Amino acid sequence: MEPTDPGDPGALKPGRGRRRAQDVRRATLAAAAELLLTEGVHALTFSKVAARAGVSKMTLYKWWPSPGALAFDAYFDAFEETLAFPDTGDVRADLTTQLHAFIDLLNRNGPVISGIVGAAQGDPDLAEALSTHYVTQRRRLAVERLAVARRAGQIREGVDLETLVDQLWGAAYHRLLMPAQPLTTEFADRLIAHLFLGIAPDPADGAG
Amino acid sequence: MEPTDPGDPGALKPGRGRRRAQDVRRATLAAAAELLLTEGVHALTFSKVAARAGVSKMTLYKWWPSPGALAFDAYFDAFEETLAFPDTGDVRADLTTQLHAFIDLLNRNGPVISGIVGAAQGDPDLAEALSTHYVTQRRRLAVERLAVARRAGQIREGVDLETLVDQLWGAAYHRLLMPAQPLTTEFADRLIAHLFLGIAPDPADGAG
Repeated sequence: MEPTDPGDPGALKPGRGRRRAQDVRRATLAAAAELLLTEGVHALTFSKVAARAGVSKMTLYKWWPSPGALAFDAYFDAFEETLAFPDTGDVRADLTTQLHAFIDLLNRNGPVISGIVGAAQGDPDLAEALSTHYVTQRRRLAVERLAVARRAGQIREGVDLETLVDQLWGAAYHRLLMPAQPLTTEFADRLIAHLFLGIAPDPADGAG
Repeated sequence: MEPTDPGDPGALKPGRGRRRAQDVRRATLAAAAELLLTEGVHALTFSKVAARAGVSKMTLYKWWPSPGALAFDAYFDAFEETLAFPDTGDVRADLTTQLHAFIDLLNRNGPVISGIVGAAQGDPDLAEALSTHYVTQRRRLAVERLAVARRAGQIREGVDLETLVDQLWGAAYHRLLMPAQPLTTEFADRLIAHLFLGIAPDPADGAG
């Protein structure tokens, strides 16, 4: 969603030599993401982002309710393309592609990501910002792709798509946040196989 | 596992008026669990636990490598009975019973539990203690129950039991730590149904 800034109409008028709102937003998100990924969520302040992006601190105060909200918008934005859901028409293949990219991302940025989730525990404002500006947005994109598959008859009726999100991406976050077993692409393949094949014995085996 | 304390043989000799090692361990774990659940993981120090349990601080130093290790042993011990795996011979029913108890526990102690996991992020010593003294122990118990079911033909060969742990308990932790959707017993039922029934369309529907 494009932020609007009715209190600062000058920002929307390039004719006055001011940057367009969209450019300001892009520069801000890029600066915030860079700060987040290099120094962690606690280092991210409006002052630092404003200085790095060449944007007035007042603009950030107007557009984002808190540094946490800005951090998670920036985090979402930074990885939106990497985590995009392909739609080749084969949901199992597409989930495999996306989950491999997701696990690769978790492995490349493990300490930053676990630091973000960790910081949100016990900090209600940061938790609310994480939920609103990141978790809810990512879940929505996943559920949209899964809903296409269900409509196409590749996922049966009666499956709860929100629950599937926890059994795929949530299972991977579990290995990141409470580590004990490796977080690999083979793990992603097993997550998907268990759900598509089911774990009950094949009736043809006569074991059920 | 019972701790041994070869450096302090007196602790093992009730004839000398000292408490038996097992009693000392029980009193220590109970005091540590109470402190953990009322004041959080950061409040737990060897001094506080020793004072509360009436145990010498030196004993705690000998038995536990860190306050975190003691905290997570105590946490494991406090809920071992609540989280026990029934074995009625029907794994799906038994998983339902256990997961309902687990989700009830997460809901009753949400802030403490998310505080523990949060504190472990970005603190390598606490993370190691959590992994060794809690996560690995709980996973082992889950895998043992699932292995019984697989041997009994209630879970098909080829299912990776460690991955199942992430798709059941890990999925629930995901809703606790990155909240966006409710953590209910109906959610537990759906986790189990997705895995046992699979999410692919029923071939009889002709939709596949």
